[in-house]
Amino acid sequence: MVPDARKRLSRNLIRRAGRIRLLLMDVDGVLTDGSIWLLSWPDGTAQEIKGFSAYDGAGLKLARSAGLRTGIITGRSSPATTRRAKEANIEFVYQNRPEKLAAYKKILRRARVTDSEVAYVGDDLPDLPVMTRVGFAIAVANAAPEVKSVAHYVTRRSGGDGAVREVIELVLKAQGKWAVAVKKARA
Amino acid sequence: MVPDARKRLSRNLIRRAGRIRLLLMDVDGVLTDGSIWLLSWPDGTAQEIKGFSAYDGAGLKLARSAGLRTGIITGRSSPATTRRAKEANIEFVYQNRPEKLAAYKKILRRARVTDSEVAYVGDDLPDLPVMTRVGFAIAVANAAPEVKSVAHYVTRRSGGDGAVREVIELVLKAQGKWAVAVKKARA
Amino acid sequence: MVPDARKRLSRNLIRRAGRIRLLLMDVDGVLTDGSIWLLSWPDGTAQEIKGFSAYDGAGLKLARSAGLRTGIITGRSSPATTRRAKEANIEFVYQNRPEKLAAYKKILRRARVTDSEVAYVGDDLPDLPVMTRVGFAIAVANAAPEVKSVAHYVTRRSGGDGAVREVIELVLKAQGKWAVAVKKARA
Amino acid sequence: MVPDARKRLSRNLIRRAGRIRLLLMDVDGVLTDGSIWLLSWPDGTAQEIKGFSAYDGAGLKLARSAGLRTGIITGRSSPATTRRAKEANIEFVYQNRPEKLAAYKKILRRARVTDSEVAYVGDDLPDLPVMTRVGFAIAVANAAPEVKSVAHYVTRRSGGDGAVREVIELVLKAQGKWAVAVKKARA
Repeated sequence: MVPDARKRLSRNLIRRAGRIRLLLMDVDGVLTDGSIWLLSWPDGTAQEIKGFSAYDGAGLKLARSAGLRTGIITGRSSPATTRRAKEANIEFVYQNRPEKLAAYKKILRRARVTDSEVAYVGDDLPDLPVMTRVGFAIAVANAAPEVKSVAHYVTRRSGGDGAVREVIELVLKAQGKWAVAVKKARA
Repeated sequence: MVPDARKRLSRNLIRRAGRIRLLLMDVDGVLTDGSIWLLSWPDGTAQEIKGFSAYDGAGLKLARSAGLRTGIITGRSSPATTRRAKEANIEFVYQNRPEKLAAYKKILRRARVTDSEVAYVGDDLPDLPVMTRVGFAIAVANAAPEVKSVAHYVTRRSGGDGAVREVIELVLKAQGKWAVAVKKARA
Repeated sequence: MVPDARKRLSRNLIRRAGRIRLLLMDVDGVLTDGSIWLLSWPDGTAQEIKGFSAYDGAGLKLARSAGLRTGIITGRSSPATTRRAKEANIEFVYQNRPEKLAAYKKILRRARVTDSEVAYVGDDLPDLPVMTRVGFAIAVANAAPEVKSVAHYVTRRSGGDGAVREVIELVLKAQGKWAVAVKKARA
Repeated sequence: MVPDARKRLSRNLIRRAGRIRLLLMDVDGVLTDGSIWLLSWPDGTAQEIKGFSAYDGAGLKLARSAGLRTGIITGRSSPATTRRAKEANIEFVYQNRPEKLAAYKKILRRARVTDSEVAYVGDDLPDLPVMTRVGFAIAVANAAPEVKSVAHYVTRRSGGDGAVREVIELVLKAQGKWAVAVKKARA
């Protein structure tokens, strides 16, 4: 972690981020900008389109290569999310979970980590039950006020525009792993 | 309703919002940002894509759970809108209605409410006939000047970017139902 | 035309706009924001998606109902543009015309109008040959500097975000037809 | 090149740009804004959508007509990119190359140019190995800090919003070919 960046983060934040072994995220509004795009199909149904960020994707792969585990919990379900999770090498994928706490507990058991070792990035009310339990709760810049008020950190970037990359950089820097990860990425 | 929010709204606005039992909306420019996306199909036709907001969607479900009824009246028609209305638990869905007043009157009869109990969110000229009748007329931030000039309230957020969520929050706060609805949403 | 709006426009602009009987436009960057979206198809081809503005669409229909004729000349070709032109009631549709001057001359003959009775809205270099001939040349806010420098008017709004609606409002106001058109639209 | 523009560019930049015979680019974040759009398909797969800029496209065709060779190296692969490369008359197309250096070396051999004659436009960490070799390394406005820090020039425009057009204009102006190219484009 470069000295300048360390100075910008508070001691408390570095301590919280330093313990993280698992990074969990919501999808809509966090890995996307919250837009739900629907394509009308000739047979009268509609298919979903989601917009992810290449910048987040590169960050998520970099996180895994640096030993940070990753997962998503989302109330919706779509092949788009499934494919993106695979591309970004995301380990835990729980879709169709409008109530997120049950999925959260399952992931903790499977990953064998405790609340204090988990970071969660959210944007709206259904994220609150998980955010009030994890060791490091992050709200994206576009989150609802109720979500920001329980977060330990609010990202400068918005969902779908690099918010998750910002969190990964913060965590890896707090753990002194960023510089090595960047060097590996450019090799 | 939190004291701060109550202070920001005028007495007149709270009175209008307090009476609302039915929230009606236009679709393009209100539940979307007004973009009409068309996908060229190999057979020479084109299918419509619409971009909705997850934030609005959560708000609309929350509104219903708090007892506020909801509906849309739109000049266009597409499976995308049909699916989104279902996802957001919207009760009254009137598509393909370039002249909105007739649909408005039908909904009032079906819902057994009067003009003063209806809020309508609009953005362009075809919304004017309904907006000049309802008890609470709202223009989105991106509305035409002619629409803003007849509105009782202009949202800070734009269509497709949380304008409808802002209206729902305003109405439920005026009715003292917001805090309970948020608590239920995070349970 | 309301007095305030008249004051904002120069005498010269009102004179040019007052003579217009036919409004011609480029598509990409003018009726859209210039994004060329391509959907990968399972068979290895790609289909085009275009994003138009509901606000422009309403304006174009309003223009026709006020007696202003409309047309597009575009270097690309897609079913999306064909459908949108139909929806917006556009009279002259010339696609697949990378060199626009020939199409322009054909339209003039078909419409029986002269250069000074034509307005053209453009954004990039291929629009220059037509823009230097028409009576009223308009560049969108996002146009190339070379295009802005030959324009009689540069819109405040960008392509795909209401630039064409702005032009239609300007022309109809200069001709004293806007107020009536709005009244008709809300009837 | 117009005198004003020449003044704005440093002597060093003009020297670097003046030698360029081949312009190479990343795709995501450079020819697009970095959004990875995925359409859910009824069979459970997802297809990619990419958004390119008409303004970049016109610039790329203009570059070729002025004798500048062009190419892309991207870690992803999609029919959308293939079609866009064809439309924009891009000569070298290397997709599915997460490690870009090998592809870069192949292109140099095929094009018979040296490092100092190549410009490369990038936005993220995988672009670093190529950017530290080429004669003229350009980062887009939305590039990662690590990428900007090795670049000779950072564009004012973002990827997908004219960044590549800005680079082409810069190179052709430095070579005194812009004015002629514009004249040809409007003929």
